[in-house]
Amino acid sequence: MERYRILPDMTVDLDHFETRYEGEMDKKDGKKLLKEHNKTLRDLQEVMFAEHKQKLMVVLQGIDTAGKDGTIEHVFGDVNPQGTKVANFKVPTPRELDHDYLWRVHPHTPGSGEIVIFNRSHYEDVLVVRVHELVPKPVWEKRYDHINAFEKLLADEGTTILKFFLYISKNEQAERFLARIEEPHKRWKFNPGDLEERSHWGKYQHAYEAMLSKTSTPWAPWYIVPSDRKWYRNLVVASVIVEKLQSLDMQPPEELPDIDSYRKQLIEMIGKAAE
Amino acid sequence: MERYRILPDMTVDLDHFETRYEGEMDKKDGKKLLKEHNKTLRDLQEVMFAEHKQKLMVVLQGIDTAGKDGTIEHVFGDVNPQGTKVANFKVPTPRELDHDYLWRVHPHTPGSGEIVIFNRSHYEDVLVVRVHELVPKPVWEKRYDHINAFEKLLADEGTTILKFFLYISKNEQAERFLARIEEPHKRWKFNPGDLEERSHWGKYQHAYEAMLSKTSTPWAPWYIVPSDRKWYRNLVVASVIVEKLQSLDMQPPEELPDIDSYRKQLIEMIGKAAE
Repeated sequence: MERYRILPDMTVDLDHFETRYEGEMDKKDGKKLLKEHNKTLRDLQEVMFAEHKQKLMVVLQGIDTAGKDGTIEHVFGDVNPQGTKVANFKVPTPRELDHDYLWRVHPHTPGSGEIVIFNRSHYEDVLVVRVHELVPKPVWEKRYDHINAFEKLLADEGTTILKFFLYISKNEQAERFLARIEEPHKRWKFNPGDLEERSHWGKYQHAYEAMLSKTSTPWAPWYIVPSDRKWYRNLVVASVIVEKLQSLDMQPPEELPDIDSYRKQLIEMIGKAAE
Repeated sequence: MERYRILPDMTVDLDHFETRYEGEMDKKDGKKLLKEHNKTLRDLQEVMFAEHKQKLMVVLQGIDTAGKDGTIEHVFGDVNPQGTKVANFKVPTPRELDHDYLWRVHPHTPGSGEIVIFNRSHYEDVLVVRVHELVPKPVWEKRYDHINAFEKLLADEGTTILKFFLYISKNEQAERFLARIEEPHKRWKFNPGDLEERSHWGKYQHAYEAMLSKTSTPWAPWYIVPSDRKWYRNLVVASVIVEKLQSLDMQPPEELPDIDSYRKQLIEMIGKAAE
């Protein structure tokens, strides 16, 4: 999966990346492998929680319909929600806008033993903010450096960071919007304003390219995930996370040396309580 | 007061700084001038609150008894507490220790129109943490860069930062501890553990020197305040803050163009209510 990782010195041109590439596997095998990853991830997260040492921050970015919600559901669906949190970042409130743009983000970063999935993130402050010029260029162009420094702080202090850009084609987006309209139970997800956002497609691609080129660091790499096929997108994200967590060599806390004596005491208590 | 400011490229040797220097003024004139500054500060803060644009972060550091609490009382005593907050940083809680060391600090940074005074701060993570080796050197030595980057973020996004190191002599500290014991209403402030901390005086001086040398930046300067004389310490801190706020050229929001029509309406309402 390392072929999807953006190296720190790369200048990303999205035209050179696939949205539909499926690897060497067919869908059926891919889905089977994803199920295995789901279980492995559940077990890894349990050890992580018990060890209470590692922190994992997963950032998901992508244009409307790219599959951020679906990825959360299908990659993390089996994980114990105690110890795994999702942080959503919508339009900032007035109180949030009274502070620097990382002020609302920092409190959601993971603590020891925790996974936090960022469904959108501080990257919106160099994406939607840049596309719509919500702040002047001299303000947003400094933010790439801030963000790299912020993630360096988190990494130096013990957080593992993985960032996924879910990359779909413009045509795929139109098909997914249509599907939202056609399927009654999905219709709530459709918002006419989404089509207005789609009209800025080119500007968004530029903003994504700048983000991927400037903020894929050794301590917080970006992966560009071909996302037109949902099963393949889920498989890539799950594989990268499982591989990374496995490399951390997490261990549950050491066994108590006198565990036998507790066993004896408990057996006695059970005996007495049954009398 | 700019002579107390540490320039970014300075290497600070505290032996070359005075703890007792009083400037060219006598105590009586100094206290009179402080009273004027108190009033000016109150007025400036009111405009700041109304303008809702500037943010001011004041950091106070100094060894036990250096006068952090006294500075807050005597410099900010006249300011409206709505819009002026004090953030205290004590021993971190277990939940705070589960996160990076700026996690508990960031939420307290000022919003638009606010002043926040940091009574101790993130600098404890390169002071007490360094002196007592609460984390290994490879961890704390990276923190100077993190802190500079964090303060750069705040400054780029609109926060004015002023940092004061309240500098007292070792003898002055002993006298102040004694005063705490001798005066019954101050006795609650004395803690036998303080004397144990005093035994690390030399290590603290080194840690302060490193902090002052590495983190006095163009966007967040340190001032070394001679603090053996309390009135002079207060005067220096107040003068720097007043001067800085004046330089921001704050303006209350523009008057409504149709203020006369509101005046007429209100006069009518008063007339009717009186009928």
